[in-house]
Amino acid sequence: MTEPPINRPGRLIGVSLGPGDPDLITRRAWSALRSSASAALGAGARWVYPVKGRGAESYALEIARRAGLVVPADAEALHFPMTSEPAALALAWTRAGLRCAELLAEGRDLLFLVEGDASTYSTFGHLARAVRGLDAGIGIEVIPGVTSFHAAAARIAQPLAEEGETFAVIPAAVGLAGIERLLDEVDTLVLLKVKPLLDPLLDLLERRGLLEQACFIEKVGAPDERIVREVGRLRGATVAYLSLLLVRRPPRSAR
Amino acid sequence: MTEPPINRPGRLIGVSLGPGDPDLITRRAWSALRSSASAALGAGARWVYPVKGRGAESYALEIARRAGLVVPADAEALHFPMTSEPAALALAWTRAGLRCAELLAEGRDLLFLVEGDASTYSTFGHLARAVRGLDAGIGIEVIPGVTSFHAAAARIAQPLAEEGETFAVIPAAVGLAGIERLLDEVDTLVLLKVKPLLDPLLDLLERRGLLEQACFIEKVGAPDERIVREVGRLRGATVAYLSLLLVRRPPRSAR
Repeated sequence: MTEPPINRPGRLIGVSLGPGDPDLITRRAWSALRSSASAALGAGARWVYPVKGRGAESYALEIARRAGLVVPADAEALHFPMTSEPAALALAWTRAGLRCAELLAEGRDLLFLVEGDASTYSTFGHLARAVRGLDAGIGIEVIPGVTSFHAAAARIAQPLAEEGETFAVIPAAVGLAGIERLLDEVDTLVLLKVKPLLDPLLDLLERRGLLEQACFIEKVGAPDERIVREVGRLRGATVAYLSLLLVRRPPRSAR
Repeated sequence: MTEPPINRPGRLIGVSLGPGDPDLITRRAWSALRSSASAALGAGARWVYPVKGRGAESYALEIARRAGLVVPADAEALHFPMTSEPAALALAWTRAGLRCAELLAEGRDLLFLVEGDASTYSTFGHLARAVRGLDAGIGIEVIPGVTSFHAAAARIAQPLAEEGETFAVIPAAVGLAGIERLLDEVDTLVLLKVKPLLDPLLDLLERRGLLEQACFIEKVGAPDERIVREVGRLRGATVAYLSLLLVRRPPRSAR
């Protein structure tokens, strides 16, 4: 009797799709997605993508669809609940890691589709660690992408930083004290996920004389993108989860 | 007698080529470059690209060449000297702006090729302001791209930031005091253009117990890319201009 052939496991590849506009997908990500989408079912790399719950939509998958890519029939959703509860998160990462390890054992590469950039506020790092924790020999690759804040700066033709300048990126949930300390240190501040703290942030910017230096951008590059330059008008408004504020301080010579 | 037809001026478009690997060019930048490269001479958009002096090589143009694009015969170099002398810089920006305004008056779009991302430590912002200073009606567009630090994080499969974390980007020339203050505030620090300050930076990282949390990446994605994880070994070494350090502090719970 012969043993069944042992497959070499596939690699886990984080595929960055950029912030929403399918034209901002890189040539490498495009080529990886297209070749797997056009391969015969069960051949080529397999797609996995994050969703926030069973039956929920995946923003990453939506970008791929808008790009005109046909989603392979065996593409699979991985569930990452919207929670900051450590135990629930750890459970989700472990479950997703187990499922990826199962799929990788079949020998096909796994393409994990992520919006934005896979190294920047993405679930990919957690997933990669969970998979490596189960099998340290699994190869991990990352295809970098354009972030929402780089696309936002381009969209309003405003530099994020020029020579000799600094910038920082901070999720609003870090809190007002941390935001204020970073405001003192950098030339441009990128505030991400501003939805739950929008009014207090606007108060802070007003107090610092920075309301006119700020610009609000929601779902950059998506069909329902929204740009608000007079950010004071957003007080009391409900904004999308994928929204940010770019705050560019006056030149140092003018402070 | 009839007046000669008045051309509508072209647009100035900042085309981000990413950090060095031609596969990291976005689909939009690729499409803009390829359609102008294949247009008849004198038709399509015109290429301009930055060089540091007459006869010098352009890193942005080198990326386009490595991508297999044929450089149009009427592509033109714009000179931006390597100096921090304000008068010399202002003169270079004004000259480049004048030349772009002349070319734009012919009615063709201008594609200004930049390495990395056009909003991030790029000459493009200065050029766009110089052009708009001459003719406020000129349309400016920016095609965003992948930055060197996003590509570097992907290359070593290490997150720049995960949920609830912050990161800052700082050119080493800002100085050790500013770097140290930002180190206190953020989870990941990206130190750019480290060449002139490498040894003092390594001393600072050692003093802070962060040598093992740092990774050095030079010319990411280029054929002569170099990655050094034991950064202490770089003391006394000469490194390239396009080099950076990623410093990831231990998780907050472990500090």
